[in-house]
Amino acid sequence: MSAAAPTIKFLQQPTSQAWVEQALANLDTILLDHSHCERKAAGVALNLMFRYPSSAELVKALTAIAKEELEHFEQVNHILEQRGIPLKALPAPPYGAGLRSQIRPQEPHRMLDSLLVSGLIEARSHERLGLLAAHLDDAQLAKFYRGLMASEARHYGAYWILATTYYPKDEVNARLAELAPIESELLSSLHPEPRIHS
Amino acid sequence: MSAAAPTIKFLQQPTSQAWVEQALANLDTILLDHSHCERKAAGVALNLMFRYPSSAELVKALTAIAKEELEHFEQVNHILEQRGIPLKALPAPPYGAGLRSQIRPQEPHRMLDSLLVSGLIEARSHERLGLLAAHLDDAQLAKFYRGLMASEARHYGAYWILATTYYPKDEVNARLAELAPIESELLSSLHPEPRIHS
Repeated sequence: MSAAAPTIKFLQQPTSQAWVEQALANLDTILLDHSHCERKAAGVALNLMFRYPSSAELVKALTAIAKEELEHFEQVNHILEQRGIPLKALPAPPYGAGLRSQIRPQEPHRMLDSLLVSGLIEARSHERLGLLAAHLDDAQLAKFYRGLMASEARHYGAYWILATTYYPKDEVNARLAELAPIESELLSSLHPEPRIHS
Repeated sequence: MSAAAPTIKFLQQPTSQAWVEQALANLDTILLDHSHCERKAAGVALNLMFRYPSSAELVKALTAIAKEELEHFEQVNHILEQRGIPLKALPAPPYGAGLRSQIRPQEPHRMLDSLLVSGLIEARSHERLGLLAAHLDDAQLAKFYRGLMASEARHYGAYWILATTYYPKDEVNARLAELAPIESELLSSLHPEPRIHS
């Protein structure tokens, strides 16, 4: 059953109502995991900048993304602090590793797949943070998540634009058509531990 | 011969005049290397945040540092663009690897050494960017480097504060007294390729 999220081009299947219920019932863990997600997203952007240091458009777009992710990381950590939730490591759900395993190791495939996988993760984050915004009782937190949605949308848009900057649009669309069902499949059964990508 | 930089507590030996001459004679390469340094510094801060996710003070201070380094990275890249210097990879000088080899692999030493090595690198960057500011003929570029100096100084201060947050001050001072001569020794003979840390 769909949680009635807005349709997002990158995503083949919308998030289930079961995830929303799991998230709302485990809000502290979701907030902590969200903090990890923002730091990881900044790390992924930075790693791509390290791998492709001479790709000027990529470096420019990902610098902006990494800065914003760190900004959000700071904001989520401030919320954690206000709520007395201590920072700690959390085992990652299988989602990220499952998606990364789809990145073909040879160039030029590697860069395309890396951009599309990041785009898919950003699109899913956008959808799920939007669901939190829509379903949270806490008005302040809902407002925070509504505020984040716009930048998450910009981020997957930026990854899409980068993919089509460096690759023909047909090739990008064809590869996205392969990756998007895998992304949805990875979330088709709810991971037992509550996470942004459980 | 010293280039008459302000004395910086972390640094045992000041930068030689030979480095200043090498840098000024190879400004395009130095600007490009400076861009890499800012991205690397953001990467190091982020890696430490990944390694110590539950150390709240560390996470907070390094998030701020990583954001600033990315800001500077963006600014240097803008200058490169204005000057028509294309982004490209540059082989690193031996300095960074030489310092990292001093980080003891076991905790609790690893964290202390990582913080002090980063502090030393930031202190040296502060000194050398200051030398660029003092010696550059280009007024706009000199102003840019003067502007960066204050944040580089904050950065090594932040690494120092973190070290003394997590370790007794005597232990921090003792280890710094071991690492600082090694840092200076790594720069005692000028690396033939012009770099911020040549």
